[in-house]
Amino acid sequence: MSAEPGTVRPGGRTARVRTAVLRVAGDVLAEEGFAGLDLADVARRAEVGKTTVYRRWGSVTGLVADLLADMAEQSLPREETGSVLGDLRANAALVRRTLADPRQGALFRAVIAAATCDARTAQALRRFYEVRVAEWAPCVEQGVARGELPVGTDAGAVVRAVSAPLYYQLLTTGEVPGEPAAERAARAAYAAAVAGVYVG
Amino acid sequence: MSAEPGTVRPGGRTARVRTAVLRVAGDVLAEEGFAGLDLADVARRAEVGKTTVYRRWGSVTGLVADLLADMAEQSLPREETGSVLGDLRANAALVRRTLADPRQGALFRAVIAAATCDARTAQALRRFYEVRVAEWAPCVEQGVARGELPVGTDAGAVVRAVSAPLYYQLLTTGEVPGEPAAERAARAAYAAAVAGVYVG
Repeated sequence: MSAEPGTVRPGGRTARVRTAVLRVAGDVLAEEGFAGLDLADVARRAEVGKTTVYRRWGSVTGLVADLLADMAEQSLPREETGSVLGDLRANAALVRRTLADPRQGALFRAVIAAATCDARTAQALRRFYEVRVAEWAPCVEQGVARGELPVGTDAGAVVRAVSAPLYYQLLTTGEVPGEPAAERAARAAYAAAVAGVYVG
Repeated sequence: MSAEPGTVRPGGRTARVRTAVLRVAGDVLAEEGFAGLDLADVARRAEVGKTTVYRRWGSVTGLVADLLADMAEQSLPREETGSVLGDLRANAALVRRTLADPRQGALFRAVIAAATCDARTAQALRRFYEVRVAEWAPCVEQGVARGELPVGTDAGAVVRAVSAPLYYQLLTTGEVPGEPAAERAARAAYAAAVAGVYVG
């Protein structure tokens, strides 16, 4: 258990302040993007003292980093369907739903955009994906143990391969991936994994 | 042949102005990102009259759209290696080199970031990828004709599948993909295509 501010006393005032501030920060990011974020404005909208917000998050990038940490903590645990393909499908469907959700999709676009020119946001984003990949990697490891995938398959690489085409579509075309795209992403990652592309 | 300004008389003054302005615009995007672009500043650095720049490109987004159109025109033609896998490898290597190039990589990150919050830039980016995908799609179609891939394979989907993990890595981790990542991207797209994932 971390002793960082905001993570102790989950039901206390500290936690309530964090929840309120991060909710507003997410709303602003989704609606106006990174450029619209301003600590004083977030404090006002969250009905929290400006001093508290400045002391606790320090800067807009500190606030976004904490938002990403919170999203990684909150995000759904992986599903276990009994087969690698089923698990990868569940993962693809979850990623797709996240990107298709108006608030979450806009939020990810804003954060990815900010990460292209801000090192601290880039680091927070990288950590977010590390947490997500670590959450889903066991489904690939279990598939290897069950003999569905070759020994030595890089579990993280397979999980990232599921997400890649969905993010690529959203970022390069602005088009939210549909269910067939998610299905295709899962099947493509699975076929490549079966063929041994992710070994070593 | 288009009769749009800037495309007639390739060696003329109009073309020279366009070349100078787009070079400066690309430099600024790569160095400072979209937020650093300013028409008057671009005019000054390109040693072109401000009025000319305003009349011709109208806005920062108009300038970025023209830069992307120019990049699509200038980008290298596809290679023909005699096999689908060889062609997809050549494509992956080209995409990787582009993203790894300090100027081009920074430029793409800046434009993708801008596209997340600007519809005109998003449209120009989408057109850029349409041109690139159309350039490389025939390598997949030839692979189908040679019996290397199943009939009905969506050629554009295969070409996009090669790029997706390379862009995903750059945008979500800030890490420039290396040669093994490019090789893996080509082999994964090929394996999925052989397995029929991109049929229909």
